Amino acid sequence: MKKIKIEKKILSENEKISIENSLYLSTKNTLCFNIISSPGSGKTTILTRTINKLKDKIKIGVIEGDIQTDIDAQRIKETEAPVIQINTEGSCHLSAAQVSKALKELPVDNLDLIIIENVGNLVCPSAFELGETGKIAVLSVAEGDDKPAKYPTIFAKSKALLINKIDLLEHVDFDIDRAIADAGRMNKELKIFPISAKTGEGMDAWNNWLIEEVRNIHSVK
Amino acid sequence: MKKIKIEKKILSENEKISIENSLYLSTKNTLCFNIISSPGSGKTTILTRTINKLKDKIKIGVIEGDIQTDIDAQRIKETEAPVIQINTEGSCHLSAAQVSKALKELPVDNLDLIIIENVGNLVCPSAFELGETGKIAVLSVAEGDDKPAKYPTIFAKSKALLINKIDLLEHVDFDIDRAIADAGRMNKELKIFPISAKTGEGMDAWNNWLIEEVRNIHSVK
Repeated sequence: MKKIKIEKKILSENEKISIENSLYLSTKNTLCFNIISSPGSGKTTILTRTINKLKDKIKIGVIEGDIQTDIDAQRIKETEAPVIQINTEGSCHLSAAQVSKALKELPVDNLDLIIIENVGNLVCPSAFELGETGKIAVLSVAEGDDKPAKYPTIFAKSKALLINKIDLLEHVDFDIDRAIADAGRMNKELKIFPISAKTGEGMDAWNNWLIEEVRNIHSVK
Repeated sequence: MKKIKIEKKILSENEKISIENSLYLSTKNTLCFNIISSPGSGKTTILTRTINKLKDKIKIGVIEGDIQTDIDAQRIKETEAPVIQINTEGSCHLSAAQVSKALKELPVDNLDLIIIENVGNLVCPSAFELGETGKIAVLSVAEGDDKPAKYPTIFAKSKALLINKIDLLEHVDFDIDRAIADAGRMNKELKIFPISAKTGEGMDAWNNWLIEEVRNIHSVK
């Protein structure tokens, strides 16, 4: 007699809600990226500059995750993009339930793209799916070129990697070829953009990729 | 009738082992600091420079915590200080049990000071006591002056704060007075050392403080 083995994956509460978020975003035809990095890699500056640049092309909404304070949400508000602040009150990552709640408060019908700025942490957020279309890792050159080797998970799981603060390259010991090679080895599909959100260098390539990603999701539907 | 309320704190497994570590280090008359920061703040460079400078004055051993790789331990080995590498294999912080095991492998009887370099993460490691004498926070100026406000726990719990990479101050937007004021507000006892582990600026004050801390523990016994 042939035995049939039935494998049933037990979903965690977070996974269940992340799937609900993903289905919801899919019915709304809205792209959603979850940006993950160490504290201080420049996520909020990248966001404000990207939103200002793409204002007339795609409508972007933001979910800001922070342990405390609304410093980052205030900075996003200056761009006039809709933004919801989540304070995790100590927790080191956003949860799908928090994002679900924030999605109800955002004008999703009017948005092409929602960017979730996760809590500054290169480790924990990569283990918690939020229902996003994809993850974007950010690495500042001031952090060192050994980070893809030392913190591989987020680089392996991301759709794109922004290597930020390249304006500091001449002042720090950062071998950009090593960082790109290490990150590329663990993720062959990874799109890598060396940028400076401060000077604007490299931002066009990243912005064009974002527009292309939005167009792809719209044409799929 | 007067009622007496008995409060019993249930210790977690990690807390129990951290107390054992603390007692062990105390019987050995050995100081132990747990260094916590974001990835890439410069912890390992601070350590190698500190060990080389203090080689003839105090004997330092190191416990290196990393998710993967022994890149940092290899750098410490070049100083000839005894070093034990712990790979957490995905976990975002060191545990007291891991430190307990490493302490058995270090020549503790010959050491004045053990420095634990925790996993690069500004959030999670601050919630797990390892049995250390105190915590040292490191913040790189490339990370931004808003970090004490946004990630208050580690600044509130530390004995000292090293503001590293001050050689980059002229190239980044970092208001050092704001960072010092914010960190000082949440921790009146915090010793703050602006340093550059790269150029050596400010390192003498930090090194002298370390020597003083070692002397204090020796005179107590």
